Amino acid sequence: MPDPSAKPTKRTFAAPTGTRDLYPLELARRRWIEDKWRKVAVRHGFDEIDGPTFEHTELYTAKSGDGIVGEIFSTFSGKDPDAVKEMGARLAAGERGAIAPYALRPEFTPTLARMFAARGGQFPKPCKWFWQGPCYRAERPQRGRLREFWQWNCDILGSDSAISDAELLAVCIDLLASCGLRPGQVQVRLNDRSIAGIILAEVGIPNEQYSQVLDLLDRRSKLSAEEFAWQAGKLGVGREQVEAVVGYFDQLATAGFERVMSEMFPGDDTDQIVTDRMYELSNRLDDAGLAEWWKFDPTIVRGLAYYTGMVFEVIVDGERAVAGGGRYDNLIETFGGPPTPAVGFGMGDVVLSLVLQDKGLMPSDKQIAADLGLRPNAFVISNGQPESDAAVGPMLAALRRKGMHARRSYKSTKNVGKLLQDAAASGARYAVIIESATEVTLKDMDANTQDKGPASELLARIKP
Amino acid sequence: MPDPSAKPTKRTFAAPTGTRDLYPLELARRRWIEDKWRKVAVRHGFDEIDGPTFEHTELYTAKSGDGIVGEIFSTFSGKDPDAVKEMGARLAAGERGAIAPYALRPEFTPTLARMFAARGGQFPKPCKWFWQGPCYRAERPQRGRLREFWQWNCDILGSDSAISDAELLAVCIDLLASCGLRPGQVQVRLNDRSIAGIILAEVGIPNEQYSQVLDLLDRRSKLSAEEFAWQAGKLGVGREQVEAVVGYFDQLATAGFERVMSEMFPGDDTDQIVTDRMYELSNRLDDAGLAEWWKFDPTIVRGLAYYTGMVFEVIVDGERAVAGGGRYDNLIETFGGPPTPAVGFGMGDVVLSLVLQDKGLMPSDKQIAADLGLRPNAFVISNGQPESDAAVGPMLAALRRKGMHARRSYKSTKNVGKLLQDAAASGARYAVIIESATEVTLKDMDANTQDKGPASELLARIKP
Repeated sequence: MPDPSAKPTKRTFAAPTGTRDLYPLELARRRWIEDKWRKVAVRHGFDEIDGPTFEHTELYTAKSGDGIVGEIFSTFSGKDPDAVKEMGARLAAGERGAIAPYALRPEFTPTLARMFAARGGQFPKPCKWFWQGPCYRAERPQRGRLREFWQWNCDILGSDSAISDAELLAVCIDLLASCGLRPGQVQVRLNDRSIAGIILAEVGIPNEQYSQVLDLLDRRSKLSAEEFAWQAGKLGVGREQVEAVVGYFDQLATAGFERVMSEMFPGDDTDQIVTDRMYELSNRLDDAGLAEWWKFDPTIVRGLAYYTGMVFEVIVDGERAVAGGGRYDNLIETFGGPPTPAVGFGMGDVVLSLVLQDKGLMPSDKQIAADLGLRPNAFVISNGQPESDAAVGPMLAALRRKGMHARRSYKSTKNVGKLLQDAAASGARYAVIIESATEVTLKDMDANTQDKGPASELLARIKP
Repeated sequence: MPDPSAKPTKRTFAAPTGTRDLYPLELARRRWIEDKWRKVAVRHGFDEIDGPTFEHTELYTAKSGDGIVGEIFSTFSGKDPDAVKEMGARLAAGERGAIAPYALRPEFTPTLARMFAARGGQFPKPCKWFWQGPCYRAERPQRGRLREFWQWNCDILGSDSAISDAELLAVCIDLLASCGLRPGQVQVRLNDRSIAGIILAEVGIPNEQYSQVLDLLDRRSKLSAEEFAWQAGKLGVGREQVEAVVGYFDQLATAGFERVMSEMFPGDDTDQIVTDRMYELSNRLDDAGLAEWWKFDPTIVRGLAYYTGMVFEVIVDGERAVAGGGRYDNLIETFGGPPTPAVGFGMGDVVLSLVLQDKGLMPSDKQIAADLGLRPNAFVISNGQPESDAAVGPMLAALRRKGMHARRSYKSTKNVGKLLQDAAASGARYAVIIESATEVTLKDMDANTQDKGPASELLARIKP
């Protein structure tokens, strides 16, 4: 006798804009991607870690400045009404920065850096860590960009060797290959930020401007020539300097890695270090059989200020980026850890899914179910006799106790033909038709053959 | 040449109180639990779904009232400064309720109800859905209760049959059994809320008070007798009524299910329906071989207002609840869906982990790695010759391309004995010692045997 005062009031609710409701087939597609991510990371020797969904807001403002709060979701506990009022007053006054105590992570790297700073010393180096989970950004949603999206990060911490750079690129490329993508469709565009640094120095752009100019260069393809020149002007960089930089970049892009390395940087020690390192990385990628997957591209500089050396983007059809990363040798120290060379990349589920769908590489739902181990081993049917009806529940229980994925129909029909259609729709390997308390018909749904006999004997053929 | 202006500033950051940083071994333990949850749900025929981490705040206040905002984490986008100011002003003024637009989910059930209301009509009934992911509550953290915790939900929507109740209990019990728990250690305490309803009516407590009185009864074991009587008084329920209810409950608990059903409820039709249903459920649990896992307990009523019939809690050592759930036949309608009978339960990772640890049932880290498929197939070592050193990278790449989990040491040592220790520490099945460009020693780390010979021949023995 339920409480009659709990009479339902009709209301319709929707998911927040930019988030997703994933019903079984849709979630299976995301799980399929997550499964690929995990398996590839594991076979390349990465260990998985996880951290909180929300962090202290300062974790993000400390690195990126107060402006980041306009791009993230802020979070606060409702437990203490006085604290909420005080926060409200500061927000009402237009204060920016870390006013709300927490923020949903817009990316995992700050959490990774914080975790490594706290306990990284206890692990043998380098730490090869991967992570996958949801991230959040307060943006207008559009194709390929949602407010909640799944991200895969792989990072190698504590090694400044080109071996690490090559291993990081290898795990990224293996993921693409294991999804069925081929070198013609997808390309790793590789650069070393130091090359841009050398050019900027050559052109006479002062050190303090590097970050901003690199950020502007990163956005170059999205801006008109005038807009680009105007923004450069705002940074105090003259038209002739911009033209010189762009000229170098065009030359580098045309000349390709070999000539760039040998002809353009015969110079001083720093240049030599960059050159040697790019050569070593190039050779290691060749050794790993990855030569056709990558291309040297001096225009790739990545916007984020924390990259310090090698940077790359994975570009599909010469346009969309499905992944990106690079070397960030100063970041761990910024978060209170010891000086730690590090390299990493991130890949999101939204663009990867779109690319796989566009290329016809997302497997069928049936294949996904098989890949994820979701295919039922058995579908149990009664032949309609009362003693068979009564045996369905115990049979299901017995099969499941043996670790088997067993299903049944919940329809009231006793039509065995219709129930066999349900068995087929479920994708089950076998249909088990209960003929009596001790006898079953076992129908192999793949071979389309069947046997009738003692239950104990036939059921032994079904394996989880 | 990285930007020298990016010189790191030292700061130390911590994870927000009540959240967890999970390093590889710790995360593997949570993944092990998630893996159990998923496998058990799948073999019982449940399909997985997922929804947003945050929802419109109204999704929670509509069902639970404005008070819920004191127990949850509120969330807002920083994108629109004017909207943030306006929200701040309302919070500063002490307004409660859905002031911040979003909230982190404190539980998954409202999302499930919303999703079913939106698209449930497209699926065959009943929908057997499971979900696992993080939930959030704004509480002071304590042992067994964190602010961010992982939850497993199983729900059967669109069936009012006792078959569904039995199937739901079966999947919950199978999880406990598959973690190694035994009936003596853990017990399903089962009741039908209607039984409490019948008793309350018998004692003369008016309909409008049911929810509050049931909530009070739910907290009975945590209150002193005086406190309980005082709170009952506040609800306008007299001492003699409370004593009568408690008397019935004690009688029910002592008499047990059989006598309760046959003697205490010989009455009217409603009583008969409840009695028949409990009998059917009892029989179905017996049929599934679960008789020793459960006990009828009339004191279990569950605090949440939305339960309408069968309710249960899974109690460990007669004390801690690791899971709980019941039938909620009105909830889907409350969220805008069609009238839909439904039954479900939730289980959290925190209490389950503590219970498994306390009972010595959490497997060793080595066993967890094996269960999760994290054991390396091969650990590649150079014998120290330059041509062997150069072959390590390509060998790793070749093994991984074949789907194998291959690792190496990053140490500079060339001492094969020390490197074999690293291989052992990694838990790898085989160590591959490169002797030359074409010859390897394959060491079986389990059998402690080794063979030296052509690389191609020996490596064929390693299987992913």
